[in-house]
Amino acid sequence: MSPLTHFDESGAARMVDVGAKPETHRLARASAVVRMSPATLALIRDKRVAKGDVLEVARLAGIMGAKRTADLIPLCHPLPLTSVTIDFTFPAEDSVRIEASARVFGRTGVEMEALTAVSVAALTVYDMCKAADRGMTVESVRLEEKDGGASGHFARDPAPSA
Amino acid sequence: MSPLTHFDESGAARMVDVGAKPETHRLARASAVVRMSPATLALIRDKRVAKGDVLEVARLAGIMGAKRTADLIPLCHPLPLTSVTIDFTFPAEDSVRIEASARVFGRTGVEMEALTAVSVAALTVYDMCKAADRGMTVESVRLEEKDGGASGHFARDPAPSA
Amino acid sequence: MSPLTHFDESGAARMVDVGAKPETHRLARASAVVRMSPATLALIRDKRVAKGDVLEVARLAGIMGAKRTADLIPLCHPLPLTSVTIDFTFPAEDSVRIEASARVFGRTGVEMEALTAVSVAALTVYDMCKAADRGMTVESVRLEEKDGGASGHFARDPAPSA
Amino acid sequence: MSPLTHFDESGAARMVDVGAKPETHRLARASAVVRMSPATLALIRDKRVAKGDVLEVARLAGIMGAKRTADLIPLCHPLPLTSVTIDFTFPAEDSVRIEASARVFGRTGVEMEALTAVSVAALTVYDMCKAADRGMTVESVRLEEKDGGASGHFARDPAPSA
Amino acid sequence: MSPLTHFDESGAARMVDVGAKPETHRLARASAVVRMSPATLALIRDKRVAKGDVLEVARLAGIMGAKRTADLIPLCHPLPLTSVTIDFTFPAEDSVRIEASARVFGRTGVEMEALTAVSVAALTVYDMCKAADRGMTVESVRLEEKDGGASGHFARDPAPSA
Amino acid sequence: MSPLTHFDESGAARMVDVGAKPETHRLARASAVVRMSPATLALIRDKRVAKGDVLEVARLAGIMGAKRTADLIPLCHPLPLTSVTIDFTFPAEDSVRIEASARVFGRTGVEMEALTAVSVAALTVYDMCKAADRGMTVESVRLEEKDGGASGHFARDPAPSA
Repeated sequence: MSPLTHFDESGAARMVDVGAKPETHRLARASAVVRMSPATLALIRDKRVAKGDVLEVARLAGIMGAKRTADLIPLCHPLPLTSVTIDFTFPAEDSVRIEASARVFGRTGVEMEALTAVSVAALTVYDMCKAADRGMTVESVRLEEKDGGASGHFARDPAPSA
Repeated sequence: MSPLTHFDESGAARMVDVGAKPETHRLARASAVVRMSPATLALIRDKRVAKGDVLEVARLAGIMGAKRTADLIPLCHPLPLTSVTIDFTFPAEDSVRIEASARVFGRTGVEMEALTAVSVAALTVYDMCKAADRGMTVESVRLEEKDGGASGHFARDPAPSA
Repeated sequence: MSPLTHFDESGAARMVDVGAKPETHRLARASAVVRMSPATLALIRDKRVAKGDVLEVARLAGIMGAKRTADLIPLCHPLPLTSVTIDFTFPAEDSVRIEASARVFGRTGVEMEALTAVSVAALTVYDMCKAADRGMTVESVRLEEKDGGASGHFARDPAPSA
Repeated sequence: MSPLTHFDESGAARMVDVGAKPETHRLARASAVVRMSPATLALIRDKRVAKGDVLEVARLAGIMGAKRTADLIPLCHPLPLTSVTIDFTFPAEDSVRIEASARVFGRTGVEMEALTAVSVAALTVYDMCKAADRGMTVESVRLEEKDGGASGHFARDPAPSA
Repeated sequence: MSPLTHFDESGAARMVDVGAKPETHRLARASAVVRMSPATLALIRDKRVAKGDVLEVARLAGIMGAKRTADLIPLCHPLPLTSVTIDFTFPAEDSVRIEASARVFGRTGVEMEALTAVSVAALTVYDMCKAADRGMTVESVRLEEKDGGASGHFARDPAPSA
Repeated sequence: MSPLTHFDESGAARMVDVGAKPETHRLARASAVVRMSPATLALIRDKRVAKGDVLEVARLAGIMGAKRTADLIPLCHPLPLTSVTIDFTFPAEDSVRIEASARVFGRTGVEMEALTAVSVAALTVYDMCKAADRGMTVESVRLEEKDGGASGHFARDPAPSA
């Protein structure tokens, strides 16, 4: 059997049947880092200079993006999310770290929702600041934790995120 | 004046008025790298094992994602894209590099469309392979080139992409 | 604690976690009034003159709009609506009153779905008639009733709707 | 001929052919008022109490909503908006007034985009504050000004908006 | 060179670059036939029995569907449609024929928009009548005419549509 | 009572209330046939000539289209699909047959999701091949089977599908 469950035996892509799985509480946390010049980060942090709150715009974009996951990722199941939150921290003078948590009571996990949330939030930071700093990059988009469901708990080693 | 043009003088977010700009041909190229275990990359490259073509799914998702940019990024202008292409290369035994080009004849640039294309393609690679490798990460989401429009040509130094 | 539950203690917007709430039958009714010149209302009511049925178009737009609520309202939960209906009455010779009912079996209420339904229906009436009457206004968009859920039954006093 | 141009001679709804119209700069301004208890307005204005900025959320929702107009209003033409802005004022101790401006260089007007922007912003204010005040209403959703296009300039009398 | 222009030389799917093509007026007409029992057709035609107008619902769905074409068809260009109309005829006692016309002033044709319009309208007829007649089928979804653009005029022979 | 359940007694369209129905496992299978010249079919089957895989693109479009059903069909309920699969067969030298299966655990059936899946997949085949063969048609879009729910099992006679 293929280890890639999104394909059937003949290699056809499919939305995997999760109908027989039980509904359980599921959680996923994902993160991403936006790297930028220290001057750009200073601009984001000092809202008087920027004249507006970049991260609040990014937060809303990320939450709304999570709700569009099944529209964007071809084989994702549509899921009635019960919660999405996004937090920002500043692990270095040139970085914004974005972390999203998504939850659902459902038959399949919400990793893609959490990853979509941080990706859309990161792209929005880029969009808001690109006139000042075209060289920004998004790094380390990754799953931090996953809970609920048959595959059990997953947690990334507490490594380079801070 | 704030260097962040998405805010007005009072700090209010806005969709910047581009009505007075001329329509010109505009191009943007962006890239991202998906890092994974060598075994997962082998799976992607050997379609007989994976029993399906992960990258073709990701390519379509990226192209379709580019068309949803203005739905996802709050202050982006809707733009009638004239072209989107996505290519994959394998810079190392643990990496897929995704590059997207977007074009439009319009009043504002398509950086966000190219960046959204690579981000959605990268997330789709993650989704297709996550049953085999939850530790994959997306790295170096960034603008490679931008052309057309008043701000002139932008090209990133030809650094670590290959 | 803030009385505005869409913000956390730090002031960050979030999609509130409703995962611990029980699923119950929930109903919401909302209404709106479109005010217009008596001549425009006559046009809407006499389908021979208008050569088409403005209110049927508005009704469908409102029902479809209710299904887009979570796409439009940033912190709304996506909900699998089980019913949406829209009715029109004519409380005065210059007014169409729109009332929508939305139902779901879920963890949170459908006020926003009912309010979105009447708002989109009202905007559609405006769109259909604007060539004849640009001065139309939408008034009294409001929640009429809400049932199901921990906050109990809500009913507006039977005041100025007729 | 019917005064309602969205219907043809047989009464069939249609998306009116604007292909023969010239492209011109077009502007529309619309407004709405959200009426609430003075305590709720105080909460919105004092962001320390609310622990978050209701109006910034509403502003982004309104801008994003303007981009969805052709998805929501059945016979609206899709238009590449060149600008959307939203402003808030406080005409009384129980009211927030929302004003949106939309612009395009195109073959048809953007009244519906401006009206959709204020409606979605108003619904978002409702959503953000409904836990505190279910009795809020949206009033006076209306076109304030329209410019560009064959029908000429339209301005509402400078009446009860302040 | 491949005769399938949606693939590049390496077989990768792409949104073809139309940026160098001139903008011209373009038209496409498409049709479809919904076949049903004569009793179901009688129901549709006699709106007193059906207690509602199936075809008006289908018409709106088809027009709105045309606007979603680029969301649905992976490699379609987003296009600012200038007109969409849908007409119904009854070529036999068991058939509704749907014809859609779509127009744009743009760089590429609107065949897919016209075909999507008739398909969504036909599916809506099915949905509205399925409780009465599950055996309905959609037949002969096809392009009738195409005009504008370098490939010239296309018209299907006036064959079995009536 | 009208046999068309999407209308109420007054003829108003509505999203029928399914809130009182039990949640059950539901399945629907639908099919469509794309008829084309034998040369076009040869092109699709010989991926070396086409330089790409038309049917994989169509399969993904169909799966994604199924998820948009409630956006497209006005009175359809939004449903959290648990599975969508699409298969292709070649019943004759001028035909591709598309079959989709959709599943949900819910209060109403998924016929429209299966029919939307095959319709969008068929339109995508048309789009991919239209440069080579404008005369293609989509035929026999129909429900093959339906299971789950109060109306019981439906299966079309095993007639002309092969």
